[in-house]
This record gives sequence, C-alpha cells and structure tokens, in this order.
Amino acid sequence: MTLKEQLVQKINLKTKPIGALGKLEQIALKTGLIQKTLTPELIKPVHIVFAGDHGLADEGVSPYPKEVTAQMVINFLKGGAAVNVFCRQHNIGLKVVDAGVDFNFSEAEGLINAKIAKGTKNILKSPAMTQKQCLRAIDKGRELVALEFHKGSNIISFGEMGIGNTSSASLLLHKFTGLPIEECTGRGTGLDDEGVRNKARILKRATLLYNPDTPLEILRTFGGFEIAMMTGAYLQAKENGMVILTDGFIATAALLAAYEMDKTVINNCIFTHVSDEKAHRAMLEHLKAEPVADLGMRLGEGTGAAVIYPLVKSAVLFLNEMASFEEAGVSAK
Amino acid sequence: MTLKEQLVQKINLKTKPIGALGKLEQIALKTGLIQKTLTPELIKPVHIVFAGDHGLADEGVSPYPKEVTAQMVINFLKGGAAVNVFCRQHNIGLKVVDAGVDFNFSEAEGLINAKIAKGTKNILKSPAMTQKQCLRAIDKGRELVALEFHKGSNIISFGEMGIGNTSSASLLLHKFTGLPIEECTGRGTGLDDEGVRNKARILKRATLLYNPDTPLEILRTFGGFEIAMMTGAYLQAKENGMVILTDGFIATAALLAAYEMDKTVINNCIFTHVSDEKAHRAMLEHLKAEPVADLGMRLGEGTGAAVIYPLVKSAVLFLNEMASFEEAGVSAK
Repeated sequence: MTLKEQLVQKINLKTKPIGALGKLEQIALKTGLIQKTLTPELIKPVHIVFAGDHGLADEGVSPYPKEVTAQMVINFLKGGAAVNVFCRQHNIGLKVVDAGVDFNFSEAEGLINAKIAKGTKNILKSPAMTQKQCLRAIDKGRELVALEFHKGSNIISFGEMGIGNTSSASLLLHKFTGLPIEECTGRGTGLDDEGVRNKARILKRATLLYNPDTPLEILRTFGGFEIAMMTGAYLQAKENGMVILTDGFIATAALLAAYEMDKTVINNCIFTHVSDEKAHRAMLEHLKAEPVADLGMRLGEGTGAAVIYPLVKSAVLFLNEMASFEEAGVSAK
Repeated sequence: MTLKEQLVQKINLKTKPIGALGKLEQIALKTGLIQKTLTPELIKPVHIVFAGDHGLADEGVSPYPKEVTAQMVINFLKGGAAVNVFCRQHNIGLKVVDAGVDFNFSEAEGLINAKIAKGTKNILKSPAMTQKQCLRAIDKGRELVALEFHKGSNIISFGEMGIGNTSSASLLLHKFTGLPIEECTGRGTGLDDEGVRNKARILKRATLLYNPDTPLEILRTFGGFEIAMMTGAYLQAKENGMVILTDGFIATAALLAAYEMDKTVINNCIFTHVSDEKAHRAMLEHLKAEPVADLGMRLGEGTGAAVIYPLVKSAVLFLNEMASFEEAGVSAK
C-alpha cells in the first residue's frame, strides 16, 4: 500500500462512521503526506508577520493613513494586536519582520530587521521594486523560514501588515489569473462603494503602464516587500517539508507568485480560511483549494491561519489518539 | 448606552478595521450579552455526552448494530473516541451519561448512571417513552447541568450517542417545523441511497401512527432518552445563564424541543457548526441561526462543539486582550 492508502485506511478504521470527521480527515491525510508518516506531529508552530509600506498608498487606495503600518508594527511588538492574542492562545511563536516599513524602528524590541527600503515605489510612477530588491526580499523570506526550520519548527504560517497592500494583491491576482482587475478589487480595510470604484480605476491605470511577463517581473512590478518576502517564505517552507497554513487575500497573493515559481508549493499548504475580501475566493479557486472555514474575517496579520491552527491540531490528534474499531472492541457496519 | 451598544463600541475600537474579525465579533458580542459584561470569561468548560438506545433500531434504520451504543460508551470511558481527543485538547471536562443504554454497565468507571430504561420502545409499536419517562429524562438533564453550574462552569456543550437517533431527530424536525419527513431524513452514520429511502419509509409510517400536539408529547413519542435529557440540559443551562455551544443534527433536534418550551433558550446558544447530515441546515434555518463553521462533520458525540470551542475562546480573548486604537496609538480612519 502507498502511504496515502495507509493513511486513508488508518482514518477509516477509527471509531467513527467513514468520513464523519469531514475536513479534519482531509487535514489529517494531508499532514501525514507532507510529513511522510502515519503519525504526524505539529512541532514548534511559528507565525511570521511581514510588514511593509506601499508607495501606492499615496494615491488614497486605503481609508487608513500610511503611518498605520508602523503603528501596527509597534502594536505587534507590544502584544496588543489580534495576531498576538491568537498566537498566545495557541502557543504559536510569533515573529514580526520589518520587510520595508517607512519608519525608523531604532530600538523596537523583538522586531526582525529585514528592511529592503522604506516602502515600495508608487506604481503609478515606476515598478514597486527593482528586480534586485525583489530578489533580496525573496531570499530574506527564505532565510527567515530556514532559521525557524533549523530551530525545530515543522509548521508555519505567514501574515502581513501594510497599508495599501490589498491593491498589490489585487494586481497580482489579475496578472496571475487574467481575471479583470475590477473583479480582483475589494474593500480592503473598509472602503465604501465609491472608494472601491476609485481604487479599481487606479489599479486599472497601473495595469496599463506595464506588461511584465515572468512571475518575478510581475511580483516586483506590482508586489510589496512584505509580499515578496512571503513568496520566498512559502518556497523555503515547501523545500523544508513544513506544513504551511495559508491565510487570506494578501498572503495568498504571495502564494500565487510562489506557485508560479514552483507548482508543488501547494502540496504543503492547508488553506485555513476564505477571507471576506471578496476576491480571495477567486484565488482559492485558481489554486483549486478548499478553505477549512469561512469566518467572515478580513483582518490580515495572518489571523485566519492563527485561529484555525487548533483545528489542524485536532486533525493530527484524532489520527494519533483515537482508537480503531478493533482496539475499542466496537462492531463495524 | 445599553450593554449591547457598549460591547459593539468596545469591539469597534479594537486595532482592526470595523467588522474585520467577522464571526468572532458576533461571538464576542453574544458572549458579553449572555454574561452581561464587557469582559466575558469562559470558566470550566464542560461537555456532556448523553447515550441512549432506540427501539426503532430493530427496524434497520442504521447500518450499525444497536450494540455499538454501549461499545462506544465504553470507548468514551477509555478515552479513545473523537470527543475524548478534542476535549483533552482543549481542557474541556467530559462527562458521559447513560441516559438509557440497553446494557448493564456494572463497574464502568466514570459513567454517570441516569438510565431511564434499557432503550426506548420501537415507535412503530408504541410511543418511544411514557410521559413520565420523558419528564424524568428532562429533569435528569437539568439536574446534571445544574451540578456543573454549581461547580463553577459557565460554558457547556452537549453531545450524544445512540444507534438509531438520527431517526428520532428527523421525526422531531418534521413535527416541529412541518417539513416533509423525506426532507428531514438523511444518511445518518452512512446509509446508501436505498438505505435512506427505506429509513424515510419507516419514518413516514411512524408519523402516521401518532398525532402528538404539545412539545412534550412530540418529544416523548418520537424522541430518545438522550435527546430528552439534552432538552432538559439546554433549558437548565439557559436558566443558569451559561454559554451553550450547540452541536449537530441530534443535539439540535433536542434544542428544537427546548425552544418550543422556552423560546429564549437560543439567546444563550452559539451554533458551532452545520453538520453534513443534510437536514441540520433546515434546523438552523428554523432557528434563524448561523453556524460558526461548516467542517463537513457528521460524527455526533458533540464533536463539532468541541473542535469549535477554541474559536469561541479566540472571540472572548480578543475582546479582553486586544488594544484599542487609542491604547496602541494607532491612527483611525
């Protein structure tokens, strides 16, 4: 029997009707396949939040001022943000990375300095990054994940903070799938209808300025430092055989880029939730991925992945700890 | 400001876009309203599994033999069932109750003996319970919940085990909503299409035999001991102001009966998941309830409530622990 067949058999012999644990059974199977074992374990879960600023924020694509990126980074470091709460709840190690925030964090305790530049360029004026910057960001994301892997983690998730970054994510979705930019554009942190229309007009203009034709060119033209770093992070986590918990709209945009560079990356991904940012669903469909839950969340920071973590753990635990019909002396059908 | 307005304001001032935590915000609000506080807490969570046998099982409505009820109770006591795994994971106190299993558990460690009789009557021959039995079961359910409340628990969930009990749940749904019995009937533990048709035919016959017209009469005619006990359990938990995490098809059937007896019971309910047993959705619609998640689960035992518990806790934690915009020095919109 193949490992997959053995895992399915192990799941089916547990004291429950076949299939009765639904998505938890799929997660158990996937985790076993990723770890190449009948007894997967989740060790030292780590969550990395990448923060970066976006030149396009100057065009009013977000209802929040750009300063909020740095302010929220400080909130992360003080432990007051949503992602802090959920990582504490589940004993997930939280790392906060300055991928390119437009602020000098001189003595910010615990912040990982990976600043590529103080924000990307305004894409109405030039590509967001140089190719060199984009490659550095990807490498840095890889490096940070490799470090956690070598410290013993085998499960990882990524989140982000960056005022304006749903705009980048919309552009990446548009370029990687061909979906009209209007369908890729949503409310972000809370634009009203007119705000969304204005954002779509700005993004439409951006699409007419460039015609990048490789994943790297697309990423450096329309992405952000935090997004490119996540792209590298996914690729490294896949190479290290880690379980990857994917989050929402922006985190999945980074995954689209990684997927174009290495299609096998999604073999290691558990898609934790579908964001209330409407075009996230299109991303998941493009990747043929089914999310674990729809909690109506659209916060960023990787909060969806963090709150769904215990369900992934439930899947692993039932696989390891539940009795089989034979062990329990329960009659089968 | 009313408490509700104060809770909404507190949620909206947290460092996140308004509404961005989706269903977690609704849960935070509801928990605050149930506990009548801006700082709700989840104390000593308890999960009670009620087990009972069904005379109707003799008619072949389930693919599993009736003996499985008792065998699974023993599995619960040994810690090998799914609900054991998930309660251990989340430090939820698990109680297993013999509500009416057709087996003598002489020295079964940890089992709470509340046996009304050794299984209900076959409803093709007589009502499942006498009125007296049904009232005793309801009282027993109340008593068990009151005990946990007095030991300090303020959050509780209920699950069940009973071969044949999706049949009872289908009949209760039919009687309480008027939905055709065919639409109330599903695969249970895994019937094939022909099995479902046969089950629906049997249930149809049962509906023609009786015409109960009060909630109590409906419950005693078509219910089960474990279901009636859950009905009492819900009513008591409501009276004690506890947060109630509802589970799937059978647990919600018991809630339908409780709801007919006291409509306010659902004010205390958080609907954790929608079961893959298809007619569960109709129950939720009848109660105008939106489930937290759809995990494709249909196991029973209250496993849905148990795996969703950490999301309820996430909601309470963000409400208590997240910084506000002002506290964090983050600019608002």
